[in-house]
Amino acid sequence: MKIAVDAMGGDFAPAAVVAGAVDAARHLQGIERLVLVGDETAVRRELAAQRGRIPSNVEICHAAEAIGMEEPPVQAVRRKKDSSINRAIDLVKNGAAHGMISAGNTGAVVVSATLKLRTLAGIDRPAIATVMPTPRKPFVLIDAGANTDCSARMLVQFAMMGTLYAREILGCANPLIGLMSVGTEDSKGNETTKEAFKLLQESPMLNFRGNIEGHDLFEGEIDVAVCDGFVGNVILKTSESVAHAVGHWIKQEFRRNPVRLAGTVLLSGALRSMRAKMNPEMYGGAPLLGANGVCIISHGASSPRAIYHAIRVARDSVKLNLNEHIIRAVGESHVS
Amino acid sequence: MKIAVDAMGGDFAPAAVVAGAVDAARHLQGIERLVLVGDETAVRRELAAQRGRIPSNVEICHAAEAIGMEEPPVQAVRRKKDSSINRAIDLVKNGAAHGMISAGNTGAVVVSATLKLRTLAGIDRPAIATVMPTPRKPFVLIDAGANTDCSARMLVQFAMMGTLYAREILGCANPLIGLMSVGTEDSKGNETTKEAFKLLQESPMLNFRGNIEGHDLFEGEIDVAVCDGFVGNVILKTSESVAHAVGHWIKQEFRRNPVRLAGTVLLSGALRSMRAKMNPEMYGGAPLLGANGVCIISHGASSPRAIYHAIRVARDSVKLNLNEHIIRAVGESHVS
Repeated sequence: MKIAVDAMGGDFAPAAVVAGAVDAARHLQGIERLVLVGDETAVRRELAAQRGRIPSNVEICHAAEAIGMEEPPVQAVRRKKDSSINRAIDLVKNGAAHGMISAGNTGAVVVSATLKLRTLAGIDRPAIATVMPTPRKPFVLIDAGANTDCSARMLVQFAMMGTLYAREILGCANPLIGLMSVGTEDSKGNETTKEAFKLLQESPMLNFRGNIEGHDLFEGEIDVAVCDGFVGNVILKTSESVAHAVGHWIKQEFRRNPVRLAGTVLLSGALRSMRAKMNPEMYGGAPLLGANGVCIISHGASSPRAIYHAIRVARDSVKLNLNEHIIRAVGESHVS
Repeated sequence: MKIAVDAMGGDFAPAAVVAGAVDAARHLQGIERLVLVGDETAVRRELAAQRGRIPSNVEICHAAEAIGMEEPPVQAVRRKKDSSINRAIDLVKNGAAHGMISAGNTGAVVVSATLKLRTLAGIDRPAIATVMPTPRKPFVLIDAGANTDCSARMLVQFAMMGTLYAREILGCANPLIGLMSVGTEDSKGNETTKEAFKLLQESPMLNFRGNIEGHDLFEGEIDVAVCDGFVGNVILKTSESVAHAVGHWIKQEFRRNPVRLAGTVLLSGALRSMRAKMNPEMYGGAPLLGANGVCIISHGASSPRAIYHAIRVARDSVKLNLNEHIIRAVGESHVS
C-alpha cells in the first residue's frame, strides 16, 4: 500500500508533516510506501532534521507550488497546477498511490478531488465525515464542511455514507441517524431539511431516528448526525470553542475562591485527561467520503501525532474498501 | 405600564408562570399591571397556591385554549383563535398591554406576532435576539430561531436590530458585528451569507468586522453574531449541550482518580458558580425584534425566576422604546 502525503499543507508544514510521516513509515503496519509531496529541498531539509535513519519506504515527489491556507480554493486549484495538493491527488488518480492525506487548505482538497477524481457513482458531491467524542460514545458528523449549500438529495447521500463509515470505523451494527434541525417534530426545519426528512423516511436501508437538535448531539444516542457543510462546520467549531470556554471558566472559579485554590492542581490534571480523551488528533483525519479515491483531511493545526493518525485513517480506509461499500449501498438504494 | 403574560406557556405552566409573575408584580418597579392570560380556573388555582396576598396589580384575562409546545405553529395559531398566545398578542395589538411574554411554543408566538402585529416599517421578518455569556463579556446572537430560511437582506436587518439591542441592553457604544460563516475570508460562506457580506460592508451605519467562525463566538471580541434562525438555534442548543457534556466529563475525571476524588466538593462548588454565571435565566427572555409590539420569548423550561426576568426584559424594552429606535435606524439606512 502506498499513501501520498501533502508535505506542504498545514500551519506547521513541512516540519510537522514530515515528522509525522516518518513516524508512520516506521511504526504503522501495512503501509509499503509513503510519498512526501512538496518542495524537494524543503522536504529533504526536514528529513535530515529527523532523529535516526530515514526509513527506506519514504520517498519524495517534487511539487513546485503550495496552496496557502487562506487562498480561494477554486482559483488556487486551477492556477497552481504543480501544487502539492494537486500532485498528491494526481498520484491517487493515476493509481500511483492508494490514498492521500492533507492538513492544508480544506476547500482546495475538496475542489481538487472533485475535479480530478470525480465522485463515486450515485454521489453528487463528496462530504467530510468527522468523528466527534461525547461522554458516552463517539458519533459521525457529516458534512463537516465540504459543501456550504446542499440539496435534500445530497443530505440523504451523506446519511448513507455516514452510515457505512460509522459501521466500519465505530463498529455500530445498525447506526442510528439523526437529521440536524431546530426541533424534533417532523414539521421542524428549513425547506431543505424538511424535504430530506421525507426522503430519509422513505429509505428502507437507513436507520433514521428523525430530526435532532443541538441538545441531542452529545447525549450519546445517535451514531450519525447529518447536516449541510455550513451547519456542520458551525457545530464543529462552536463545540471546540464552548469546551475551551467552559474549561477556562471552571479554572477562573477555582482561582477566585481561596478554599478551591487548593484544588487547582487536581483540576488541571482532570482537564488534561479530559482533553486527551476529546483530542481530535486521536481520531486522526476526516475522510472526504464520496470522492472516487481515498482522501483524508487533517486539521490545519496538525501536530506530527495528528499526521500519524491521519495516515492510519488513510490506511484503514483503503483496507476497508470504503468506496466499494459506498458504491454498492448507493446502487442498491434509490437516492442517486 | 401593563404587561401581558401567557400563563399557559412552558413546560411548568401555569404554576411556574404564575409564581414568577406574582413575584414580578410584587418586586419589579415600573410595572403598573400584569395580565395573566389563560384558563381562568387554572390560573385562579395557581394564584391561590401562592404564599401571601396576591398583589392587586395582577389581573386575569381568560383564554379558553392553549397551544401545545409541539403543535405546528401556523395551523395552531390559525385554529386556536382563543389560545393564550393569540389573546396575549391581541392585548398588545389593541393597546391594552404595552408588551407580552411567553414561555410557550416559540414558533406560535412568532407566527401570531407576525400575523397580528405585523413587522416594523422596513423589516421583512422579526428575529429572536438572545444574550449569550462568554468568559469575557456577553454577546447578542440574532436570529436565535425565528426564521429557518433567510434572505441576505433579512440578515442585514438582523445586524441592524442586533446592533441597537447590544447598544441598549449590553451598553456597547459601537457594537462589533460578526457574520456567522465557515471561514473568516470574504469568499467563505454559503450563497446567502456571501451576498449578506457585501451588503453589510456597504452599510456605513454598521460596525462590521466581517465573517466569524464558531471559534470566535466565545472569545469575547464581537458584540453581535448574525445568522439565520436555523444556524442560530443550532449554536444555542449545541453550546448548552457541550457545556453540559464538559461538566459531566470533568466530574467523571475527578471520580475516576482517588487523588482527585478529594477535590470533588471543590469542583461541585465551582461548577455551581459557573452555571449561575452562565444561567440564561439571568438574561431573562429573548425579544422578538422587528415585530410591531414588544414580545419576549422565554425558555420552554422556564422557572419562576426565568419568568420574573422575562417580565423585567419586557419592561425594559418598553421603557427603552426599542421599536422606535429600530424604525429610525432602518429608515436612515438603505436595507429596507
